[in-house]
Amino acid sequence: MTEPIPDFYAVIPAGGVGSRLWPLSRADAPKFLHDLTGSGHTLLRDTWNRLEPLAGHDRIAVVTGRAHRAAVEAELPGVLDRNVILESEPRDSTAAIGLAAAILVRREPDVIIGSFAADHVIKVLPVFSWAVEQAVAVAREGYVCTIGIQPTEPSVGFGYIRKGQMLTVAGAPEAALVDAFVEKPDAETARGYFADRGYLWNAGMFISRADVLLAEIEANEPELHAGLIELAEAWDDRDRRGPAVDRIWPRLKKIAIDYVVAEPAAAKGRLAVVPGHFDWDDVGDFASLAKLNSSGRKNELAILGENARILADTSSGIVVSQTSRVISVIGVQDIVVVDTEDALLVTTSEHAQKVKGIVDALKLSGQGDVL
Amino acid sequence: MTEPIPDFYAVIPAGGVGSRLWPLSRADAPKFLHDLTGSGHTLLRDTWNRLEPLAGHDRIAVVTGRAHRAAVEAELPGVLDRNVILESEPRDSTAAIGLAAAILVRREPDVIIGSFAADHVIKVLPVFSWAVEQAVAVAREGYVCTIGIQPTEPSVGFGYIRKGQMLTVAGAPEAALVDAFVEKPDAETARGYFADRGYLWNAGMFISRADVLLAEIEANEPELHAGLIELAEAWDDRDRRGPAVDRIWPRLKKIAIDYVVAEPAAAKGRLAVVPGHFDWDDVGDFASLAKLNSSGRKNELAILGENARILADTSSGIVVSQTSRVISVIGVQDIVVVDTEDALLVTTSEHAQKVKGIVDALKLSGQGDVL
Repeated sequence: MTEPIPDFYAVIPAGGVGSRLWPLSRADAPKFLHDLTGSGHTLLRDTWNRLEPLAGHDRIAVVTGRAHRAAVEAELPGVLDRNVILESEPRDSTAAIGLAAAILVRREPDVIIGSFAADHVIKVLPVFSWAVEQAVAVAREGYVCTIGIQPTEPSVGFGYIRKGQMLTVAGAPEAALVDAFVEKPDAETARGYFADRGYLWNAGMFISRADVLLAEIEANEPELHAGLIELAEAWDDRDRRGPAVDRIWPRLKKIAIDYVVAEPAAAKGRLAVVPGHFDWDDVGDFASLAKLNSSGRKNELAILGENARILADTSSGIVVSQTSRVISVIGVQDIVVVDTEDALLVTTSEHAQKVKGIVDALKLSGQGDVL
Repeated sequence: MTEPIPDFYAVIPAGGVGSRLWPLSRADAPKFLHDLTGSGHTLLRDTWNRLEPLAGHDRIAVVTGRAHRAAVEAELPGVLDRNVILESEPRDSTAAIGLAAAILVRREPDVIIGSFAADHVIKVLPVFSWAVEQAVAVAREGYVCTIGIQPTEPSVGFGYIRKGQMLTVAGAPEAALVDAFVEKPDAETARGYFADRGYLWNAGMFISRADVLLAEIEANEPELHAGLIELAEAWDDRDRRGPAVDRIWPRLKKIAIDYVVAEPAAAKGRLAVVPGHFDWDDVGDFASLAKLNSSGRKNELAILGENARILADTSSGIVVSQTSRVISVIGVQDIVVVDTEDALLVTTSEHAQKVKGIVDALKLSGQGDVL
């Protein structure tokens, strides 16, 4: 692949804080602004780097909070000013991606948009690109297309997509209809899905003509759609944008795009899927961060942090160091230690999902200063 | 007990850093300068408070490093200047206690000294006092007397004293000869000792006439003895003390008083023991600190630190907080978390003994800034 796909526009929703990665991720330093792989780049920058060859630097839009504008622009020096779409507050993924679609379709009626989270980890770039190219070909036919990750293990941590009938679309030999979305399974069910090969991980990537996406939103959430259209009309007018955002945005329904677009489209046989044969992780919690940084090796202590001073003795898990302190871990297995200036977390991989509960408890107890 | 014992002088060797309590204890903040029980007092102050009713405030000598002089005097406003005996460098317990004995015997030839570590935890004061009174009575008869702690469990963490023949000393109905010192036992042997009741924990407390103690040192380490006598002769002369310390002290043999006094005296039938029926702990490591601060309850998370901000979920062990950071521990059992400004330790009670190894590793790797 040498040239960008001409009718393709990438959209990066850069929103979520990543509460389950507290105290590393927090309101003013959300997950997508961290280097979680030791690559030397933030996840946002890695996302940009993956999409730039596919879309071109002038055809990548980022939807983010006003508070993150400076950080996002510093991370992405190539981003065009008109492609930074600022939210006054978070309104979930339908509003974020829908607004990008509504803005872009006015600039370019036949545009195909692909939405890719700012905080996922993907390896093996050519394989990713091949999946996107197929998905764009499918989207040109009027489908909403998702990329489902071919599982590498029987995970109970992700939702699954059940593949249906194969499609016949030129340039997309692996495309199929989506039969159904299925919730995170139990271990036995997950083993069955893994053996079956017809179940893919739902990675929340959607590729679609912008007008097709908006039509789905209109069909299922007409009020939300009307708000997005009104916002988009005012968007490119410097005087009208601010008042329109202030008036309309806070009233938009907070709802995930899965419910407004993906599931209804699947029910109507209008949702396609292309399998992604690349390594993917949503780095949902510290257990997954530990796994990611130990390269899958067991009984190893992964260390994340540029200036980490770690002394470890017979320990495994992960230490995340954001300070210059000496951190000594002795005889602890699957441990998670996250050391920041104002907060320290000690848990294990097994309990990594409970971190969100601590964040809630801190909020409730008026200790939001460390969130 | 209302009056101090007239011929008794208490000596508090305040020396050891307590490496196994790093990063809480360190060179400039040794174990005896910490409040490890939440009493609101340092261990040194608690030691002083125990001894003051027995000896009187003007008859308690503290042997400590020059570097700790200011801290010790601040902790003990009642200590007399002439009772602060400063070491230019650590030379182990024979030199420390022997120097105190040599200085005090010149002031008062018949004095009985009792040496009590500055960093042990003892509860139930009247019971402690009763043991000391008996030991002083035994010491008056010319014995070296130790107080052996009546075990409260079959510990493998302490050395033991095997009681021999009972003595007949007025005022010391429980006194016996010491048959032998025995090393830290394995679990089965410890259970046997515990059932036997004739085995006591060696807590390193020695009560003796100063001249008897010095005679033992002279018999077994004549050079060391000569150095101590020479030092003591120069001690009360302001002009001579400094040069004498500089010349003699660094050359004194580093050896524990157990080898120079206790064991040889036991072999000759000159070492007596009085059982101590009080709660005692040498707080040797974080496992013992955790136990001490959870009041013996299992499955509880002990918290030490005046300004601790801890959020815990189904965790047990101990968190020591010396910073204002929020510390969150989730689902970790028997954990040890020690949070200080420049160093963090995460281990478990089971591995608490390995902390000293980390301190050694830090020294070897040139990271002494955090020791």
